[in-house]
Amino acid sequence: MIIILKKNASKLDADTILDEIERTGLKPLFLPGVERIVIGAIGDERLLNEKHFESFPQVDQVKAVLSPFKLVSREFHPETTIVKIGDVALGGKQFVTIAGPCAVENTLQMAKSAAAVKLAGAHILRGGAFKPRTSPYSFQGLGISGLKILSAISREHKMPSVTEVVEVADIDAVEEYADAFQVGARNMQNFALLKELGQRRKPVILKRGFAAKVEDLLLAAEYIVSEGNSNVILCERGIRTFETCTRNTLDLNAVPYLKSITHLPVLVDPSHGTGVRELVAPMAFASAACGADGVIIEVHHDPKMALSDGKQSLPPDQFVKMMMELKKFVEAANRTM
Amino acid sequence: MIIILKKNASKLDADTILDEIERTGLKPLFLPGVERIVIGAIGDERLLNEKHFESFPQVDQVKAVLSPFKLVSREFHPETTIVKIGDVALGGKQFVTIAGPCAVENTLQMAKSAAAVKLAGAHILRGGAFKPRTSPYSFQGLGISGLKILSAISREHKMPSVTEVVEVADIDAVEEYADAFQVGARNMQNFALLKELGQRRKPVILKRGFAAKVEDLLLAAEYIVSEGNSNVILCERGIRTFETCTRNTLDLNAVPYLKSITHLPVLVDPSHGTGVRELVAPMAFASAACGADGVIIEVHHDPKMALSDGKQSLPPDQFVKMMMELKKFVEAANRTM
Amino acid sequence: MIIILKKNASKLDADTILDEIERTGLKPLFLPGVERIVIGAIGDERLLNEKHFESFPQVDQVKAVLSPFKLVSREFHPETTIVKIGDVALGGKQFVTIAGPCAVENTLQMAKSAAAVKLAGAHILRGGAFKPRTSPYSFQGLGISGLKILSAISREHKMPSVTEVVEVADIDAVEEYADAFQVGARNMQNFALLKELGQRRKPVILKRGFAAKVEDLLLAAEYIVSEGNSNVILCERGIRTFETCTRNTLDLNAVPYLKSITHLPVLVDPSHGTGVRELVAPMAFASAACGADGVIIEVHHDPKMALSDGKQSLPPDQFVKMMMELKKFVEAANRTM
Amino acid sequence: MIIILKKNASKLDADTILDEIERTGLKPLFLPGVERIVIGAIGDERLLNEKHFESFPQVDQVKAVLSPFKLVSREFHPETTIVKIGDVALGGKQFVTIAGPCAVENTLQMAKSAAAVKLAGAHILRGGAFKPRTSPYSFQGLGISGLKILSAISREHKMPSVTEVVEVADIDAVEEYADAFQVGARNMQNFALLKELGQRRKPVILKRGFAAKVEDLLLAAEYIVSEGNSNVILCERGIRTFETCTRNTLDLNAVPYLKSITHLPVLVDPSHGTGVRELVAPMAFASAACGADGVIIEVHHDPKMALSDGKQSLPPDQFVKMMMELKKFVEAANRTM
Repeated sequence: MIIILKKNASKLDADTILDEIERTGLKPLFLPGVERIVIGAIGDERLLNEKHFESFPQVDQVKAVLSPFKLVSREFHPETTIVKIGDVALGGKQFVTIAGPCAVENTLQMAKSAAAVKLAGAHILRGGAFKPRTSPYSFQGLGISGLKILSAISREHKMPSVTEVVEVADIDAVEEYADAFQVGARNMQNFALLKELGQRRKPVILKRGFAAKVEDLLLAAEYIVSEGNSNVILCERGIRTFETCTRNTLDLNAVPYLKSITHLPVLVDPSHGTGVRELVAPMAFASAACGADGVIIEVHHDPKMALSDGKQSLPPDQFVKMMMELKKFVEAANRTM
Repeated sequence: MIIILKKNASKLDADTILDEIERTGLKPLFLPGVERIVIGAIGDERLLNEKHFESFPQVDQVKAVLSPFKLVSREFHPETTIVKIGDVALGGKQFVTIAGPCAVENTLQMAKSAAAVKLAGAHILRGGAFKPRTSPYSFQGLGISGLKILSAISREHKMPSVTEVVEVADIDAVEEYADAFQVGARNMQNFALLKELGQRRKPVILKRGFAAKVEDLLLAAEYIVSEGNSNVILCERGIRTFETCTRNTLDLNAVPYLKSITHLPVLVDPSHGTGVRELVAPMAFASAACGADGVIIEVHHDPKMALSDGKQSLPPDQFVKMMMELKKFVEAANRTM
Repeated sequence: MIIILKKNASKLDADTILDEIERTGLKPLFLPGVERIVIGAIGDERLLNEKHFESFPQVDQVKAVLSPFKLVSREFHPETTIVKIGDVALGGKQFVTIAGPCAVENTLQMAKSAAAVKLAGAHILRGGAFKPRTSPYSFQGLGISGLKILSAISREHKMPSVTEVVEVADIDAVEEYADAFQVGARNMQNFALLKELGQRRKPVILKRGFAAKVEDLLLAAEYIVSEGNSNVILCERGIRTFETCTRNTLDLNAVPYLKSITHLPVLVDPSHGTGVRELVAPMAFASAACGADGVIIEVHHDPKMALSDGKQSLPPDQFVKMMMELKKFVEAANRTM
Repeated sequence: MIIILKKNASKLDADTILDEIERTGLKPLFLPGVERIVIGAIGDERLLNEKHFESFPQVDQVKAVLSPFKLVSREFHPETTIVKIGDVALGGKQFVTIAGPCAVENTLQMAKSAAAVKLAGAHILRGGAFKPRTSPYSFQGLGISGLKILSAISREHKMPSVTEVVEVADIDAVEEYADAFQVGARNMQNFALLKELGQRRKPVILKRGFAAKVEDLLLAAEYIVSEGNSNVILCERGIRTFETCTRNTLDLNAVPYLKSITHLPVLVDPSHGTGVRELVAPMAFASAACGADGVIIEVHHDPKMALSDGKQSLPPDQFVKMMMELKKFVEAANRTM
């Protein structure tokens, strides 16, 4: 840890901090500069977080040398983690496609959508039963009955399923009916939810909040892993910026960056990441090209009738076409589909 | 509702939509332009949300004429709402100051901090028992025992109390011990929490998410009000932008804008909105000047020892000084303290 | 054009606007809704921009039906434009690589860097002689003597050259020595520069400003094209967001979106778009995958010694490796290198 | 300067850097940590910028201890600078109001607007002759004839004038006719313009770019001051964020922050900072409350007829009302009007 004091700080101010560092068992360093005093601490600086040096009146800046997360970092755990949803492995050689409608609406819709995505080569079925919606007047999902439909269709088509969980009270039900939990962007920092999911064994797809830094995403994952569940899959789904021609700004930079600093698998959701049907396929290709381990795509057998996110859902024919082209990019990336 | 079709849309494409509008009971309007067809719908357009015209393949843009929220809007409810926390009225003539430490740490700390803020003229005591923290390794709050400390000190100093609630399971406990719920920025779109708070009668201070548009904040408030609890107080606390010299960018524009479109009281939290102790006082003054109904200020009897947010907490002497100066700006705004 | 009046607007307020529309020669439409009056105008709405209806006191919102740009739009000019820099065509079948150092530092550096990028298969040589730098104390470029070095090396290696122009006074010199102008992100709305470049015939690579919406970029291009120079190439290079793990957030969504609404070629600059050497190659692959017409890459024969942007420059061996892998993604996109 | 090496860096990697630091005349420090090597440099670290340690392959992060600007910093120059525009002093006891229309449209409009703002108590007259406009089809300003009108009206009403300069070629003309230069947000990093203005003696109002960090603004000011012109006034005018209910997000945090780290005067432009007429007055009050040295307000004698920015311009009656209320906040801030 590096602590830069304010210009008018004295040797005495420095001594207070140096003493605290020493008391914690780290080695303090006094570095008087020409214009500023700098203090260093050698050792496991995470022990110093409790000291809150940034609150000291004569401290200007505190700079961590180490990253604030540990269990999810590749420094700590160099080998890539492979997480299985049902029998599908994420993070390995295979580029995985998760597809299905935004929301489970009824059995027929799920059956048709599942048949379509299975035929096109998707590996895992998605569909939301609990829908977090910006407006209280929008369709809020079918709840448990939606989970049951998803589960039945998933078994019928032999595709593992993933669905969003939005509150602690629903975790048991989701665990019973689905093969993986999804934590949506709005809940990325719902720490009660994360902690409870850390107590379970089923995998968690953790979507990046739309105002979350990559570091925040990794700290959210650390919540789950530090509770004992290491089956975490990260998902980039776009961040909020000033640009309005797309619903979000898909931050693909985050994909190779995440792959370099964490051992967890990384997916991309180009449906939410663009919000525009025509942009989903090109951004799925780009995701494969920059090193993602898979994509999540919204597919609806009839987007015009979708109760949510119809604007960004692909109809079956466009999804088939996308999958065929995607294969070329996946192979260019030395992976399989 | 205004629906703009794509350039190559035909009369037939328009007819499909015109029929749907008519079937919903609204009056459809066909407006063929020189380069594009535009369609209008006259009547309560909220009925059309279920139609999801934005998903139709030949639709380019859908533009709502009405705001998506209703109960919280001033159009719908012109008189300003006054919400009482204990015996303190927010939204009226009085400019209200809520103050206290970020987290309840122990009885002594709360007692000292409460005495200090009471003496300086604060009206309501704050202190967090459940702390949502970005890192799992940070101090997470004392939980129920923190609530008890807050409650005891609050009664002793005759100041109503407000504290954050982060999950549905804690609502009962918070309701028992505190005079108002606070929903933090990270939970602004935790809809399960909002719906449950809508079932209660105690007031809710709803903080703006750091990536939430003003419209999102109002829709979150609509969740609470539409469930039956109209005691909602909004709070601007800074949004996330590219600027890094402050922790957040305090969006004071939102204050007079909110006051014009909603009847709910509006507070400002300059402690989180700046993240820098020296900026708290000037931004509190600015909040009073631009029409806020009050401020929430982090005060700690010894910020250097604070377990969270020490960097932005005011020590008692600075808080006293701030309150004395604040009075002048509050009076300039024709209000009282 | 759709004009939505405020709630309390009267028929008289509407009449004022309806009259103005009629006077301009467009067909006015009066659409009284249940809660609001809406006014429409049928015809070439660009004629109405001079009316500034948004300034009228009873107007709430003005919504354009048509895009504000014209000459650069694909609606207006459906065929894709191919722009040639020297003998290299951009916007066609070939995926073009522009490479070279950030700044021209001296003859030896340019010679070594040019030889390296030529050998690896780059088509066009880049190198800055006029450097816009955030700090006045940073290296500002060699100016005219830098242009001369670039020109000599470019001819020697038979690669056309592109270099940035930062002010009107330098346009003649750049035109004399280079094969294309580059307008940097900071100058994207330097309208005097754009207008003057519109008077020239050499192609212009126009980089997106880091706070520019896609629409702003297209309007900036419209400045150049409307003055007579239609040889404009757009370049996405990252926008400024709250994320700090990369220098900018590369907005690849913008690539397929731009390709759909404009006929101009679109490049990507993953060097500035990431600011991190290790991310340049994966984002170049992603650029090819999502439909870009080429990339601009910073390559320095010895990045450690670079006078600017060394952190994001590739050394020759990494550039060679990137080009070999890039070929696979370019071919997956049905293009050639 | 603090240099943090990558995890796998060796003592040899460190030695290369330590040697470079020593060669520059600074004192190198070798700080081997438990997980990472850290290197320090004691002395004037600005000398090390030329070394570009961030480009070294084994370097993870470089952290400056000192700010990158010098002449504009309060550390370097503790006394507040007072800049005079005509006979009006900015940065002192008086809170200064600059007012007038967005653009000079004709003599009558300027005469009416000037009379109105003078009567209401404004100190300096504004009006644009050269208008940087996002679209080439918008009104571009009257140019030199606009300057002449501004100058004549300014003399007639005995108010000094300020007007925007957008390119080097116009500097002489603006210097002849106006009392201060204004550099607009889009040109904040037009370094050629800044350098040339640094050669002149008339004051420069430098507006913050809408994607510029506070540090970028100060570095832009450093360009002007380092060329010899220390008469620089900074102006916050809103930054670009995801919020769309206002044209920009006015970053008032920047005002007290700037006042603490620079000795230059700081203004606020609430007209551009909000883009909404009704928000201009409350944000002007907030500006005074948080420590600004003055405001720039767009006033038009008939906003409905304004050729630009009518939506955010105040009509005379509203400006008079604003000035009367503003006085109370200015006095609360212990200043005069």
